[in-house]
Amino acid sequence: MDVKKNIAVSKSNAGRKTGYRNFPMVPRVVFGRGSFDQLGDILLPVRRNAEAPVIFLIDEVFERNELVARVPVMFNDKIIFVSADEEPKTDQVDALVALIREQFSELPSGIVGIGGGTLLDLAKAVALLLTNKGSAKQYQGWDLIEKPGIYHAGIPTISGTGAEVSRTAVLLGPSKKLGINSDYTTFDQVILDPDLTIGVPKDQWFYTGMDCYIHCVESLNGTFLNAFSQSYGEKALDLCKEVFLGDLTPVESRDKLMMASWHGGMSIAYSQVGVAHALSYGLSYVLGVKHGIGNCLVFQHLEEYYPEGVALFKKMMKKHGIILPKGICRNLSESEMDTMVSVSLSMKPLWENALGPSWKERVHPDTLRKIFREI
Amino acid sequence: MDVKKNIAVSKSNAGRKTGYRNFPMVPRVVFGRGSFDQLGDILLPVRRNAEAPVIFLIDEVFERNELVARVPVMFNDKIIFVSADEEPKTDQVDALVALIREQFSELPSGIVGIGGGTLLDLAKAVALLLTNKGSAKQYQGWDLIEKPGIYHAGIPTISGTGAEVSRTAVLLGPSKKLGINSDYTTFDQVILDPDLTIGVPKDQWFYTGMDCYIHCVESLNGTFLNAFSQSYGEKALDLCKEVFLGDLTPVESRDKLMMASWHGGMSIAYSQVGVAHALSYGLSYVLGVKHGIGNCLVFQHLEEYYPEGVALFKKMMKKHGIILPKGICRNLSESEMDTMVSVSLSMKPLWENALGPSWKERVHPDTLRKIFREI
Repeated sequence: MDVKKNIAVSKSNAGRKTGYRNFPMVPRVVFGRGSFDQLGDILLPVRRNAEAPVIFLIDEVFERNELVARVPVMFNDKIIFVSADEEPKTDQVDALVALIREQFSELPSGIVGIGGGTLLDLAKAVALLLTNKGSAKQYQGWDLIEKPGIYHAGIPTISGTGAEVSRTAVLLGPSKKLGINSDYTTFDQVILDPDLTIGVPKDQWFYTGMDCYIHCVESLNGTFLNAFSQSYGEKALDLCKEVFLGDLTPVESRDKLMMASWHGGMSIAYSQVGVAHALSYGLSYVLGVKHGIGNCLVFQHLEEYYPEGVALFKKMMKKHGIILPKGICRNLSESEMDTMVSVSLSMKPLWENALGPSWKERVHPDTLRKIFREI
Repeated sequence: MDVKKNIAVSKSNAGRKTGYRNFPMVPRVVFGRGSFDQLGDILLPVRRNAEAPVIFLIDEVFERNELVARVPVMFNDKIIFVSADEEPKTDQVDALVALIREQFSELPSGIVGIGGGTLLDLAKAVALLLTNKGSAKQYQGWDLIEKPGIYHAGIPTISGTGAEVSRTAVLLGPSKKLGINSDYTTFDQVILDPDLTIGVPKDQWFYTGMDCYIHCVESLNGTFLNAFSQSYGEKALDLCKEVFLGDLTPVESRDKLMMASWHGGMSIAYSQVGVAHALSYGLSYVLGVKHGIGNCLVFQHLEEYYPEGVALFKKMMKKHGIILPKGICRNLSESEMDTMVSVSLSMKPLWENALGPSWKERVHPDTLRKIFREI
């Protein structure tokens, strides 16, 4: 999620001073089944010396997996297994940074995140907080990071979040769910190995894939859209349709969903998400609902904003026999509901992208309350 | 053109040591109409000091254009206008490097190429040759460059070549037409301003756009294809169809063709071109035919290899009233024809991509001779 918008330039003022984002792309990417095994070679030139370790942050679901034996551990490198059961938190980043500082006399040579969006965002944030003083919560926002982080590489093991290409690390903080958005956040290296997504449970595969699908719908229907993000969004959407409504082999499906995530991430990075993400952030903040399923829970009730997108989403749910939980917000107190609504409404650029500059006239807190009550 | 292939991994050996390319992406990109005017701000942090100039290599068609007044010249910066009437040459690179060395006591802060593929490839090569000793011809090939070049930015003013994203700088040398292919070749910064393509003559617009279209056809029909390059190639092809067969406004058309070029370049960078480029290289080498039109001249006769692609190409020609010159090779001597055929056949990875590992059994010099005679 990246809520700094690209300034739209009308035909009449083309040629005048403009403020389009100078977008940081991941400077190095490997794609291919089995490409994980190139990680050792890729890290060699990154290693400063034997005392400066590479820290591997790995989703703990891999703790007893054959993948661990393939992690290219050398010298005093360290593997830290991290649970992705909950959304990543600013405290968690601070604790990881403190642990690394305590255990090593030198700054690490690099941080490698292996996992889903949670692990990737943690890896980005830890790399930044090792060189930028203070707590992660101080940097939730836009362009607050002052120094480059240490080298950081991202290796997704589930497809859809777009965290592998984004310039943000979304964290739950004490007062908000918001990303550390900066040009330094983007990974220095990404390895896209579709084989790493073998074994993802079906519901997670669906929810996380829908994160990508929803990114595309929000980006393509947004007012911030331009030809750059449109081309990426359209391609990601086409790939999602192939994966979730087509008839692909498992190998093709994994390959294509990984590319959908990549292109979908590029699309929102140069435009913006919308209503689903605004509401989903409120849901996550108050109830800790994970991002992927949170998006789905919200999106099913957004026919008013995205009629075609929601219709197709329901078709995908049906095809894959996905049944969303119900009554999530049933027992919320009024004050919790108020928080949920106000956190959602605080995501101004998302609303502006979705509904235009006069979005405040077009969305009422009661509408959101009604949607949340249905979830 | 980038003829180092990505090693295909069959399902059976997935997980074994692999050799996929670790692809260098352009690390910074701005997209938007009028975004050229951000160049000054972008260059500010690049400038080392007042003695280290930025050298702007600009297509000489802009010499009397309002664009020149918008070039952010400071201190002792220098604008060099370069003709793009001929394909870029290794000698030309050497001469530019010598000129810059002679006129300035310090290495430049950066090189900015503004123009089509010729100017972009020259800018890349000059940036590399300012730090790598000797002549440009020594570096025609793959990964022969040993040191990073100086900072180089690319600003396309015509769409289709893909030179803005590629890791090559294609040059005519004394003994071959071949790129300087290296991880250091890729631009450090690209500005995609579709308004800069206003005023491109219709035939050039078509020929250069077809460079992109042909990239896609060759990449998508090649044996090196994977899901990464496929997704970019499909999107670029879709955009070409919209631009050349659809009903877009001029603004939309410029926006979309610029994105088509970008995605098409990404697609071939991670796979390979094919028969059209192999033959077109022969044509350029012997007759100096420019790359865009050379591709078109060749491609019209490649129904055997790309039946659907050629049919659509002819439809596009018809729609835009493009009539290709004829009899180009009519007066060639037998020895010139031999050279043309042997230069074309020397592009092994292109043939292997197009026809598979046993390509030699499937293509005969006489077939190429026959095609050339028809051009």
